[in-house]
Amino acid sequence: MSAPSEALLLARAAWSRLTEPGDTTAGALVAALGPEEALAWLRSDAAAAGVLPGLTDADARLRTAAARWRTRLATLDPRRELRILERLGGWLLVPEAPGWPAGLDDLGPAAPMCLWVRGGGDAAALLARSIAIVGARACTAYGEHVTGELAAGVSEAGWTVVSGGAYGIDATAHRTALMCDQPTVAFLAGGVDRLYPAGNADLLAGIAEAGVLVAEVPPGSVPAKARFLQRNRLIAAVSRATVVVEAAWRSGAASTARHAAELLRPVGAVPGPVTSAASAGCHRLIRDGCAVCVTDAAEVLELVGPVPAPEPAGPPRPGDDLPPAVRATLDALPVRRAADEESLARAAGLALREVRAALGRLELAGLARREGDRWRRAGR
Amino acid sequence: MSAPSEALLLARAAWSRLTEPGDTTAGALVAALGPEEALAWLRSDAAAAGVLPGLTDADARLRTAAARWRTRLATLDPRRELRILERLGGWLLVPEAPGWPAGLDDLGPAAPMCLWVRGGGDAAALLARSIAIVGARACTAYGEHVTGELAAGVSEAGWTVVSGGAYGIDATAHRTALMCDQPTVAFLAGGVDRLYPAGNADLLAGIAEAGVLVAEVPPGSVPAKARFLQRNRLIAAVSRATVVVEAAWRSGAASTARHAAELLRPVGAVPGPVTSAASAGCHRLIRDGCAVCVTDAAEVLELVGPVPAPEPAGPPRPGDDLPPAVRATLDALPVRRAADEESLARAAGLALREVRAALGRLELAGLARREGDRWRRAGR
Repeated sequence: MSAPSEALLLARAAWSRLTEPGDTTAGALVAALGPEEALAWLRSDAAAAGVLPGLTDADARLRTAAARWRTRLATLDPRRELRILERLGGWLLVPEAPGWPAGLDDLGPAAPMCLWVRGGGDAAALLARSIAIVGARACTAYGEHVTGELAAGVSEAGWTVVSGGAYGIDATAHRTALMCDQPTVAFLAGGVDRLYPAGNADLLAGIAEAGVLVAEVPPGSVPAKARFLQRNRLIAAVSRATVVVEAAWRSGAASTARHAAELLRPVGAVPGPVTSAASAGCHRLIRDGCAVCVTDAAEVLELVGPVPAPEPAGPPRPGDDLPPAVRATLDALPVRRAADEESLARAAGLALREVRAALGRLELAGLARREGDRWRRAGR
Repeated sequence: MSAPSEALLLARAAWSRLTEPGDTTAGALVAALGPEEALAWLRSDAAAAGVLPGLTDADARLRTAAARWRTRLATLDPRRELRILERLGGWLLVPEAPGWPAGLDDLGPAAPMCLWVRGGGDAAALLARSIAIVGARACTAYGEHVTGELAAGVSEAGWTVVSGGAYGIDATAHRTALMCDQPTVAFLAGGVDRLYPAGNADLLAGIAEAGVLVAEVPPGSVPAKARFLQRNRLIAAVSRATVVVEAAWRSGAASTARHAAELLRPVGAVPGPVTSAASAGCHRLIRDGCAVCVTDAAEVLELVGPVPAPEPAGPPRPGDDLPPAVRATLDALPVRRAADEESLARAAGLALREVRAALGRLELAGLARREGDRWRRAGR
């Protein structure tokens, strides 16, 4: 792939202004005609009539869609919006040029027209090895704590934390990554010129320094509700895996997880107290088989690689790993007084021969002590 | 099935004393020869040689097993143990007589020889409709709280709570059922004459009044470690479903859940904070696909019946269920000043015709207000 022409960049920037995110009719049209040709067609009378180039019959659905896009033609000025982006130190990513995140192609006609990117990080490199950590704005202290643990583990393993820049879990995930000196990527629902929400302005400015801010809508776009929902599909598509820390029953974070599952990306959800409404969405995702239950960073990293987490080593207790007959003999051995081999055999439900063999092993292990022809428990 | 003969009861009582719980060699032998014939054989020289009736070749495995069982022959007195049971108001359940829990047959040769039952409840009727609620002895206040909720919901729905009579989750499950005036069933690892652990003696006595205490070992048997593990398989087998509330990474409760899963019984595990070691076993069961994540009594009852739990009704917000075009128009409507239809169309990314139709619907719903030829948001 070579550097994209200015005309191509302008056409894709224009389409991202003319359409709302996730417009599959526009996506299919641009894929079929090419961005520049599709734009030229939209300006023609054929578009108003809903007639595609080379055809004579009108398509009602296309006519309706074209009428929508054409309402924004009059105020269209992609050159100005690219200048704004440039002034912010940003650049445009397009599917025709290097750096386009491969995962976005899985969205098909719902893929974004382009990505408006702003920041000091290398978006392509960061996204190539990224894990989304998303969750509730109204999170709990528990959710913040767990998010910190997971984001630190993911960052320290060299993975990029991707999130939505929102209050709560998202902010904690980004903030933790920055504290670990790992660039992080925030996908915004509005333009990258708007550090929204305002309370996260400092954090988002920090992300723009080391990492990147990304949006599929041009500068100046407001973060409307529908755009938040569409933004979630981008987070799901660019990340190798998505983890939800806290999410209400119906929530944006849960929708991101469902997008990721539909795209066959691994999805994890962190459980929490069943008494906490903030964890209800996570439990729902696990119940529905949409997400795997994840409890620490190792299990999150397992989502993106086949390395199984080691079993946490509990303190071994004497006799834990004994064969059943030896174990039963140990259980039968009295602590306070010694017992003869026949009564031990009866108590353990073993043959005399087995009890004798077991007693030998237990004596060697320092767990049984002989007193004449009787036995009792020993030490440890 | 008719009432069992005294000889049969004595033979099965004897076998439950001669063998340790879960002895599949004994189970297969008793199933093949019948309890009385198998006992007569065990007393013969053929048993000492490991030669089955009608055969001439010795079987080394059988000889070893017979040697084990024969160590207890000398002290065998099933008549006395049945008298002890009778004095406690108890009775013996055997596979050949009515009242035997059908689920136990799924254990095959590991099924118990008989059940020593004590209490005022109808064991057969109680177990026919039962759900096991088990968990950690070292539980947390959270685990106790959730156990109370689940046991109350299960009891109030007319299901019997089955558990192991231990401290912690087990005790809370039994206690809650009794408080709901629902008989409950405790499976003990030792004899039903021993109210073990001592700290639960009052609770176990209460269970024996309204519900039942059950053991597969005869009165006088001590609750040895191996018997606890084997007792868990009984809880798993007799219950229609098993739910684990809190369980450490390796624990008896987790082993009960795995037994239940192997027997193809539905298994639920209650999630908790990932920061709580008491929930680690539950999360492991969920991760392994061994248990379904359950968060309330309705989800527990779903395990035993096909009734799906209703979605919790969140407070509906205006515009929640609007079609996308109407929703987008509502999002575009300014709150503080009115906007004309063209600018609304541009903001919403809709055709003028669509915006006009949407505004009509929003006005009817009381969500938009016309001011001359301009529109703004209204009320609610």
